[in-house]
Amino acid sequence: MNIELKPGERLDDLQRNGYKIIQDPGRFCFGMDAVLLSGFAKVKPGERVVDLGTGTGIIPILLEARSKGASFTGLEIQPESADMASRSVQLNDLQERVHIVNGDIKEAVQIFGAASCHVVTSNPPYMTAQHGLQNPDQPKAIARHEVLCTLEDVISQAAGLLMPGGRFYMVHRPFRLAEIMTGLCAHGLEPKRMQLVYPYVDREPNMVLLEAVKGGRPRITVEKPLIIYKEPGKYMDEIYDIYGY
Amino acid sequence: MNIELKPGERLDDLQRNGYKIIQDPGRFCFGMDAVLLSGFAKVKPGERVVDLGTGTGIIPILLEARSKGASFTGLEIQPESADMASRSVQLNDLQERVHIVNGDIKEAVQIFGAASCHVVTSNPPYMTAQHGLQNPDQPKAIARHEVLCTLEDVISQAAGLLMPGGRFYMVHRPFRLAEIMTGLCAHGLEPKRMQLVYPYVDREPNMVLLEAVKGGRPRITVEKPLIIYKEPGKYMDEIYDIYGY
Repeated sequence: MNIELKPGERLDDLQRNGYKIIQDPGRFCFGMDAVLLSGFAKVKPGERVVDLGTGTGIIPILLEARSKGASFTGLEIQPESADMASRSVQLNDLQERVHIVNGDIKEAVQIFGAASCHVVTSNPPYMTAQHGLQNPDQPKAIARHEVLCTLEDVISQAAGLLMPGGRFYMVHRPFRLAEIMTGLCAHGLEPKRMQLVYPYVDREPNMVLLEAVKGGRPRITVEKPLIIYKEPGKYMDEIYDIYGY
Repeated sequence: MNIELKPGERLDDLQRNGYKIIQDPGRFCFGMDAVLLSGFAKVKPGERVVDLGTGTGIIPILLEARSKGASFTGLEIQPESADMASRSVQLNDLQERVHIVNGDIKEAVQIFGAASCHVVTSNPPYMTAQHGLQNPDQPKAIARHEVLCTLEDVISQAAGLLMPGGRFYMVHRPFRLAEIMTGLCAHGLEPKRMQLVYPYVDREPNMVLLEAVKGGRPRITVEKPLIIYKEPGKYMDEIYDIYGY
């Protein structure tokens, strides 16, 4: 399919199924967090998945490539990002299984219906709105700061979208772990699996990957550390595996 | 001082200040968890410390050796353990700064007074009472299972004992992390620092060290991983440091 790139956009190879993705470095490019989340999340055959705040559409597109889920729907509030994600879906000819919807996370349950899906994923803004924010109307600020939705919004909408036993997968920053845990539990999403991502073996973690189960019983498995770099510029083997090299 | 050992008891060297400790392997011996907690906890000069469920008295004795705190009080419900801990205190001539009290964690605030201390530590039973319990009246069961007190009891009493800004240090098992976080937050103890302890770099963590601050603001620092073994039988250097070798 012939898909047009707009000024400032570029085409990146996803190293998986020959898929490509459109990005605009002036707006926001996906990071390692989205890739690690798509490796951490488990989607079973036939399941319906919703990604809250999908940006470029990276998570639904990678999950489509990695699983036999029935549908992958990315919800994105910024019309330009949603349009770009839709063109990436067409470019890879994934329209049957991947859908991009332009809408607000805070209305996700209204848009898709309560208890309508098996899996929710999210790579939400990490920083609170107050935290060193300069330009609240910029695409990068919206992706990084809680300008248009809070952690509480993401968790409460995920809880509403999931059917009993459904799974919520999120990547976030470790400094908000206590808020995340209490927020999940308050909404009936029991944290069941966690992995901390350490840039080096002797450094503080900079990401946390979480799986929570709607109505699950209290017991969490903390997985082995996920370490990114063996040495500067050289990934650990596991990271190459997740990236699909 | 001449301290008598009872049948079954032995004397172990703590590798710190020449201190020794009395233990009875038939009852319960302290583990690496207590040693790591005493390395993780920070006690400032002049502070008053209470250790909930002190067992052999290992934590107050090690904290006395490592810090300039004013007093270190260990609360222990089993009279035989409290007696043994008291004899270890005398043996090391620490009666001025270390005190062992025979009493129930559930009555700690009643015993010591509300908002009466700067630091609370605990290495509580990790397992719920239901979890594979065989002999609920045995000393080992009491130390390992929530027979005589629950996680909720420990957290609520710690919250009551601490003055505003006071610090609670606990070691526990990672599988209960979500319960711990929500329990701490529910009692106004904000998790501020966490370290996961991994036996090997490629294994799941088997301990979690936590610091919570009474009335603290939400923001937690997750520290670099604490890894125990370089190879079987050989500790990482950091572990030798904590043990004081």
